[in-house]
Amino acid sequence: MKIAYIGGGSRQWARSLMNDLALCPDLGGEVDLYDIDCAAASLNETLGNMMQTHPQTVSKWHYRMVPNLADALKNAEFVVVSIQPGPLEVMRSEIEIAEKYGIYFPVGDTAGAPGLVRGLRSAMIYRTFAEQISAICPKAWVINYTNPMTICTRTLTKVAPNLKVFGCCHEVFGTQHILAKIVAEMLAVPLPRREEIHVNVMGVNHFTFVDRAEYAGQDVLAMLREYIQRPGILRPFARAEVEAQQSWFQDNLQVKFSLFEHLHILPAAGDRHLVEFLPGYTHSPEELFRWGIIRTPAAWRIERYQVALAATHDLIAGRSELTLRRSGEEGIRQIMAILGLGDLVTNVNLENRGQIPNLPLGAVVETNATFSRDEVRPITAGVLPPSIQGLVERHTRNQEMIVEAALTGDRDLAFQAVYADPASTLPVDQSWAMFNEMIAASLPYLPGWKI
Amino acid sequence: MKIAYIGGGSRQWARSLMNDLALCPDLGGEVDLYDIDCAAASLNETLGNMMQTHPQTVSKWHYRMVPNLADALKNAEFVVVSIQPGPLEVMRSEIEIAEKYGIYFPVGDTAGAPGLVRGLRSAMIYRTFAEQISAICPKAWVINYTNPMTICTRTLTKVAPNLKVFGCCHEVFGTQHILAKIVAEMLAVPLPRREEIHVNVMGVNHFTFVDRAEYAGQDVLAMLREYIQRPGILRPFARAEVEAQQSWFQDNLQVKFSLFEHLHILPAAGDRHLVEFLPGYTHSPEELFRWGIIRTPAAWRIERYQVALAATHDLIAGRSELTLRRSGEEGIRQIMAILGLGDLVTNVNLENRGQIPNLPLGAVVETNATFSRDEVRPITAGVLPPSIQGLVERHTRNQEMIVEAALTGDRDLAFQAVYADPASTLPVDQSWAMFNEMIAASLPYLPGWKI
Amino acid sequence: MKIAYIGGGSRQWARSLMNDLALCPDLGGEVDLYDIDCAAASLNETLGNMMQTHPQTVSKWHYRMVPNLADALKNAEFVVVSIQPGPLEVMRSEIEIAEKYGIYFPVGDTAGAPGLVRGLRSAMIYRTFAEQISAICPKAWVINYTNPMTICTRTLTKVAPNLKVFGCCHEVFGTQHILAKIVAEMLAVPLPRREEIHVNVMGVNHFTFVDRAEYAGQDVLAMLREYIQRPGILRPFARAEVEAQQSWFQDNLQVKFSLFEHLHILPAAGDRHLVEFLPGYTHSPEELFRWGIIRTPAAWRIERYQVALAATHDLIAGRSELTLRRSGEEGIRQIMAILGLGDLVTNVNLENRGQIPNLPLGAVVETNATFSRDEVRPITAGVLPPSIQGLVERHTRNQEMIVEAALTGDRDLAFQAVYADPASTLPVDQSWAMFNEMIAASLPYLPGWKI
Amino acid sequence: MKIAYIGGGSRQWARSLMNDLALCPDLGGEVDLYDIDCAAASLNETLGNMMQTHPQTVSKWHYRMVPNLADALKNAEFVVVSIQPGPLEVMRSEIEIAEKYGIYFPVGDTAGAPGLVRGLRSAMIYRTFAEQISAICPKAWVINYTNPMTICTRTLTKVAPNLKVFGCCHEVFGTQHILAKIVAEMLAVPLPRREEIHVNVMGVNHFTFVDRAEYAGQDVLAMLREYIQRPGILRPFARAEVEAQQSWFQDNLQVKFSLFEHLHILPAAGDRHLVEFLPGYTHSPEELFRWGIIRTPAAWRIERYQVALAATHDLIAGRSELTLRRSGEEGIRQIMAILGLGDLVTNVNLENRGQIPNLPLGAVVETNATFSRDEVRPITAGVLPPSIQGLVERHTRNQEMIVEAALTGDRDLAFQAVYADPASTLPVDQSWAMFNEMIAASLPYLPGWKI
Repeated sequence: MKIAYIGGGSRQWARSLMNDLALCPDLGGEVDLYDIDCAAASLNETLGNMMQTHPQTVSKWHYRMVPNLADALKNAEFVVVSIQPGPLEVMRSEIEIAEKYGIYFPVGDTAGAPGLVRGLRSAMIYRTFAEQISAICPKAWVINYTNPMTICTRTLTKVAPNLKVFGCCHEVFGTQHILAKIVAEMLAVPLPRREEIHVNVMGVNHFTFVDRAEYAGQDVLAMLREYIQRPGILRPFARAEVEAQQSWFQDNLQVKFSLFEHLHILPAAGDRHLVEFLPGYTHSPEELFRWGIIRTPAAWRIERYQVALAATHDLIAGRSELTLRRSGEEGIRQIMAILGLGDLVTNVNLENRGQIPNLPLGAVVETNATFSRDEVRPITAGVLPPSIQGLVERHTRNQEMIVEAALTGDRDLAFQAVYADPASTLPVDQSWAMFNEMIAASLPYLPGWKI
Repeated sequence: MKIAYIGGGSRQWARSLMNDLALCPDLGGEVDLYDIDCAAASLNETLGNMMQTHPQTVSKWHYRMVPNLADALKNAEFVVVSIQPGPLEVMRSEIEIAEKYGIYFPVGDTAGAPGLVRGLRSAMIYRTFAEQISAICPKAWVINYTNPMTICTRTLTKVAPNLKVFGCCHEVFGTQHILAKIVAEMLAVPLPRREEIHVNVMGVNHFTFVDRAEYAGQDVLAMLREYIQRPGILRPFARAEVEAQQSWFQDNLQVKFSLFEHLHILPAAGDRHLVEFLPGYTHSPEELFRWGIIRTPAAWRIERYQVALAATHDLIAGRSELTLRRSGEEGIRQIMAILGLGDLVTNVNLENRGQIPNLPLGAVVETNATFSRDEVRPITAGVLPPSIQGLVERHTRNQEMIVEAALTGDRDLAFQAVYADPASTLPVDQSWAMFNEMIAASLPYLPGWKI
Repeated sequence: MKIAYIGGGSRQWARSLMNDLALCPDLGGEVDLYDIDCAAASLNETLGNMMQTHPQTVSKWHYRMVPNLADALKNAEFVVVSIQPGPLEVMRSEIEIAEKYGIYFPVGDTAGAPGLVRGLRSAMIYRTFAEQISAICPKAWVINYTNPMTICTRTLTKVAPNLKVFGCCHEVFGTQHILAKIVAEMLAVPLPRREEIHVNVMGVNHFTFVDRAEYAGQDVLAMLREYIQRPGILRPFARAEVEAQQSWFQDNLQVKFSLFEHLHILPAAGDRHLVEFLPGYTHSPEELFRWGIIRTPAAWRIERYQVALAATHDLIAGRSELTLRRSGEEGIRQIMAILGLGDLVTNVNLENRGQIPNLPLGAVVETNATFSRDEVRPITAGVLPPSIQGLVERHTRNQEMIVEAALTGDRDLAFQAVYADPASTLPVDQSWAMFNEMIAASLPYLPGWKI
Repeated sequence: MKIAYIGGGSRQWARSLMNDLALCPDLGGEVDLYDIDCAAASLNETLGNMMQTHPQTVSKWHYRMVPNLADALKNAEFVVVSIQPGPLEVMRSEIEIAEKYGIYFPVGDTAGAPGLVRGLRSAMIYRTFAEQISAICPKAWVINYTNPMTICTRTLTKVAPNLKVFGCCHEVFGTQHILAKIVAEMLAVPLPRREEIHVNVMGVNHFTFVDRAEYAGQDVLAMLREYIQRPGILRPFARAEVEAQQSWFQDNLQVKFSLFEHLHILPAAGDRHLVEFLPGYTHSPEELFRWGIIRTPAAWRIERYQVALAATHDLIAGRSELTLRRSGEEGIRQIMAILGLGDLVTNVNLENRGQIPNLPLGAVVETNATFSRDEVRPITAGVLPPSIQGLVERHTRNQEMIVEAALTGDRDLAFQAVYADPASTLPVDQSWAMFNEMIAASLPYLPGWKI
């Protein structure tokens, strides 16, 4: 079997996949690694092949850096895409521009003006992917890991409707873990595995909701309703307390649980993503702190990138020890199911073919799906209840506008999406100014666009 | 666990279920049997309890005839409905009236004027079921086996939208068996089990279609395309040949395969049902014979009913030997999945929540669904291709009209459905005359209706 | 102002328009006449310019034959299209082939297998019109008069979505005249003008329905309901009686009124068209006679064409006298409204933008519309009632399939439309045979198609 | 003819109508005045009958105060509703509560939390109207003038789907006047009448948009595009400048024109309404001033009510002179058109039957419609472009939720609408607190609701 891995320079997803491949006895073959940063791909090649010599390894894979996309795609049965759409410095500038206009994004890679402009850049890159895959390996399964997930995945399906595409994100798993802990606590049972918490998922990536959660015949959302009534569960956080947690990724669950309290449906993404989809939270760092949220500094991301690079060199040079561990991601299990090695039901991003009847058909949505031999088929999630339909659909509409704007070069349309973004609560003149600053910062990555 | 079994006087379905319950080690409990024909229910009670003493039996069930519906429903977790909507004599008269007008129905229980008028009677009965179940055991799962499947199931969901309802039919299994045989022949492999032929199902009951069939990674429909090119597969049949088969249920597959040849999608129902949904086949017995189809005489059904009754008495009296055998129906497996004893994917009749986006939402359609603990959720089947969308939707529209007509007592609307039926190719005056003769024949079973 | 007139060789519509232009004092300009039969266009040129010298004439127009389409379109503000899609001999053969298979079409130009195959030919020609108009005069208003109206108009809107297109048909006017007569009789008032009978129109061309008719505050459909109860209004006709009427176009209103009786909505087309959209009427000449319908012989059409030609030569040569008379068509009034010379509400064929919410958006439907300066905007007609929704939608679906088949060269799709036609009640093998005979007869007019 | 006038205590609309009736020679009859404030209705009775003796009066009407709704409705052919849903003091408290939470509403009667809670109160009152009208005069035309227009009108259509209902608002006229002035200036022609500016209207009341404006064959929006480029047209306003205008209703057009600049579609409502539908403008009085907007103090409304009362007493007592003047409202022309006295096209609020296909069917929307004898039929306005579809639909969804919440007493649902309101950019806890304060203030007018 041949996998084409596009991107992966960031190492996170590529590393996880290589780990999982090494530890999976059922699969074997070759992986072509392509990245616009050839050195990064070469590093992954070296590391991947090194893993194959590791005593824990139970499979046989060969990794190879290839310097161009077409070679990577040739004869691929799976194409895994996980790129950084433009350097982290652009991401930093987008977040800073938004802050200048009074909007503070904890992540900045999915929703809000930064997420939408990042989407614009991504869609232009993904258009090429779609065209090349269609031309070279049209029957391959294409798995997207890049954010903004919805926009990237939708660009693939819009440009090449016949490709077999889905997008993967582990965000919902977190909610299953949280619910598992609450189940353990409320029922005084051992901690269930996340897969034992059966959830029905509906929405768009990072803004998904769970309207049904079941554990061993019990209604987990009813348990949660009781749980959040306990004193201290829902409460304001202080800045000092959040900073003392010394984590850029800590989720204090205040937004998730308070939305559940009032909307009667449980958000499945972490608070850091959630607030980027909603008005009311991002207008000041203090408000974010009140909800237990700290912003991930872009500077930290840039630094981490260097640290990770050094760590990889250490691994390769034998200065640190290589240990293999299953990632907990579902990529491998999905690939196995598609190869006919065992069916799987999990949440995934797919074109809406009816799984959410009150979102536009064709838009990319996230729900459960069945994975089986050469087939991924969404399970109907049902209609979004009125409490969230309007909240979700506005993002779907904006995401569709961004993809269209990228494909047609329509700058006004791109702006109209940014203007309509719920978290970007600016009057039209300021929204226009902010948008243009972001476009200017992204210009090298928007081929054909001008100031 | 408690099951309420409504109807079952015909013995077929009730008998199957009792067999399967006896042979299933994982379940046990009590079954309340209710039938308007108390004697029939009593017979089932006797037989059911007899089975429990059979050496093959591995479970513990208690059967009890109850003389009224409310008692049967009390505390039921499952309600199984399998009734005869009016006596077989009415069915006979409907088929005969249709023949008087030049339309010859091989079955007469689902589509066409006889099926629609039968639907009218059924909907009136099912309205009561819906109301009673809502009042007495609103959390029970309701499983319908009665024909016309779509109209019966839809009446339940329309009258009581909160009930958990699905409708089961084994018709699609037959197509899986046929495809398995063709796979064995074309690939020279041992006969696959029906479950190994994975099919995507779309349509309405008895007028479903398969647009994808896969066996071990191979495209079974491509195989079938080749298969039907073989000489002698598609050919006209002669009356004598069909009569010589001496079977009322023989399927010679001529309609199925020739539709597949031209519409590029495989009908999943048997030819006898198929032709009732289409114009062109039912205008003469000769035309039916040409396609290898013989009509099941209603007289035979009436007789069989008596024969079956006698056979039951023989069993009970020990004049013949009772042997238990798995029915091959999926009822038990569905119940087990709903109880949390193992997930299942199979085809089933459910309200359209998006599984077929180009049929009306809310109408009852047949597709695959996932069965898991306390949940049955349709899998998106995709849009019907244009070649069949128009053929299927007209039936959906007519079925919806019949349910509405039954619930509102709107005779004109009922006629409009019959008039719009594709197989009933009559001018409006004759259609009106035929309809009124059928209504007259059904009048005792249409409470509140007059001539 | 410049009008491009495409086709018109048949003289009927071109002649009407020239008459109306001559008698309308508000307009003037030039008309370029283009026809693949240059001689026919030249004849119209001569006749049109002759009319300009007629004493009744109150306007100033110049007619000019142009030998190619592009010249005709140059600078055109209006493009009027009225062509014969293939010679009448092909039409004759289609009707004869259908009769061979037992289906007797009184007209044969709109629905049924002959109408759909004619549509296939037309769509191929109209694709070129759409492309040329888009390239040469994209802001012109395009008015279609050719049958099959829906397919021709839809090809224009599908190929060139930005064109301003509508299709005109006088069929509904006939129903207004009939209702006016009934009003006069029932109310004992002088015959109202047709425009005084306000009707709401819904459906597709030649299969439109009226769900509301009002005259001076009175409900005309209620009057009609009473009227058709009178003895002798609804009754079977005998062949001799129909033949004695000695008219190929006599409408005895039996289908219209009996459908109204049972479906509670009034068909707006004449019976000769109506029966072609429905099963039950066209299986024998006798059945048609029973409803007062006689088939127009294609031979008569061919002969009439010659007679009309001779008559034109007589007019031009002064052997017969030229008199001008308003045609009663609305073409001129529509053009005037679009030029800003007075608003107009009338029925017209347009893409469905919501005017009939339960037919597919984008399909061409017929409803009322407001005509005003540079604008034609449909008025919402409301949802089709269930009694006719299913009857109409199946035609819409088939028409869409034919347009798609013509544009993509998909012969199977074309067949699937013919097979799904409600009047073509054949089993699939005979339907396929009939279809292929028709395609063979049309082959010279289906560029790129093969046997 | 009989008109039932419900409400009207505020005098404004009732006074306008009485004026217009007095000056219209074609109509006559009686008007029953019903108001929960009988004294107010009596005053209108006195004034209305006084007008009938005025020398300018050309019609014959009799006004009569009736103390209960049922008497007013008896035999009514038209029911005009123009009420104050709860006293102005409640309106004041809603605006003040919103300001406490940092949201400053210039009007506060349509959108935003104040508009939605006002809608809740209104829907409860309108439910009774719908029930009573259905029972007493089901064939009457019901004309709504009350705000929130959409919610009031929708309550009538939802509770009583068979009523003939529309809602009238003059907001769009203002835009026609503005465009007329710009036309006069840009083309150097005399000021056109507003009716000469033909506009296509789409949206919901007070949040409507114009995507096409035409004057004498010219594209007025293209003119406007040029016009707003002129220096000084788009510019920030200073507080002092706005206050110096000394008007609570001055529209400085900054929001309208800047949205047009960027969204390419012209908002039809005044800026004071517009900003209430959008985030970004209402977070401070300064921001509003920057856009040239001043908030209407509720205190002024309360005072004006007293002043108007005194003025009426002066008129009746002869202390001031009564002069009649046409109001410019279209109520009379609409009534005349419905009576068959001349067709009319104008914008109006109606259930969506397809006039805007990408808003939910059934929701109340505002578009043009044709008024003719006993008929008001929307003209298709086309799909909302993506730039505004998302902006409008979220309001439609919220309005639907409020109506549903009022009819079912579902407080959570009402909150979810307020939370999803785009202008109420609060985190969920503050939104909940604000909502509950407003509900507490409205409690006497929310029968059956508790704290």
